[in-house]
Amino acid sequence: MNPTDVEPILKQAIRDVPNFPKKGIIFKDITPLLGDGALFALAVDRMTAPYENQGIQKVIGIESRGFLLATAVAYKLGAGVVPVRKKGKLPHQTASVSYDLEYGTDTLEMHRDAFSPGTKILVVDDVLATGGTAKATCDLADQLEASIAGVVFLIELAFLKGREKLKKQRVHSLIQF
Amino acid sequence: MNPTDVEPILKQAIRDVPNFPKKGIIFKDITPLLGDGALFALAVDRMTAPYENQGIQKVIGIESRGFLLATAVAYKLGAGVVPVRKKGKLPHQTASVSYDLEYGTDTLEMHRDAFSPGTKILVVDDVLATGGTAKATCDLADQLEASIAGVVFLIELAFLKGREKLKKQRVHSLIQF
Repeated sequence: MNPTDVEPILKQAIRDVPNFPKKGIIFKDITPLLGDGALFALAVDRMTAPYENQGIQKVIGIESRGFLLATAVAYKLGAGVVPVRKKGKLPHQTASVSYDLEYGTDTLEMHRDAFSPGTKILVVDDVLATGGTAKATCDLADQLEASIAGVVFLIELAFLKGREKLKKQRVHSLIQF
Repeated sequence: MNPTDVEPILKQAIRDVPNFPKKGIIFKDITPLLGDGALFALAVDRMTAPYENQGIQKVIGIESRGFLLATAVAYKLGAGVVPVRKKGKLPHQTASVSYDLEYGTDTLEMHRDAFSPGTKILVVDDVLATGGTAKATCDLADQLEASIAGVVFLIELAFLKGREKLKKQRVHSLIQF
């Protein structure tokens, strides 16, 4: 199966939840896909495939649904996994970046000693929406002088044009809406 | 290497952070271990080993550091992964359980359709402390009539005697303090 072949199989395991987390939003619930061992393995394998034997040293997972994919991708690649978390959650010295939300701002943090300059990393998250979180994560990785090999998502909400915020990166998603 | 052999290797990658998340607590920071590809794979392999070829269908990961281990364990077992989350985070119909903290109570939720009765599951979390969270997660799984094969932790703070809350379960940890 090529990537196009697997999209409909994966898509039928994504559930639309209207008005979550707030009225007017249709939330893409990935838990039916994660809960199915065969589909979960298929998704992880396809997210990982372009980066096998590329020397990826660390996979960056974005809190908290991103963790549910990043760690399996890291395990498959033989890489370590580095969490990017909301402010105040990481116990050691952190690098941080703030970014604009629709209303207000949010801050993401990563441990300063998560990797040394030049480390080859892959960023993983569940959904590419407006791209704000992924862009902030890449900015964090840039602060620590990572070599960013790519940014991988399970789902891309293409109508929100998040890819435009990630023009400097190689971006890859399995399912587009 | 048997499990005893790997404990010192894994232990030296756990960092003590004093006074986190509050004064007087020494936090066991697992991020140096997670970030090291070889140690991360070793930990996942050893957490998984007793459950290979046992027909585990779903691995339950507890928000949010538990996700960082549960999904790799699930991937290795060919199982699905089911998140247990704090109240209000899961979008669909949930089962919930409240449990006592030192001050106040907390509530955990799991999707009601996460698995059908009799499904063979494994519960994974990073740290066994007092056992309250793991016990609550097992109670949730019992509500949905799971067959709980075991509960696996990376770290066990043995002096807190969390194992006593999990007497009904097969419990396994890689590192004891």
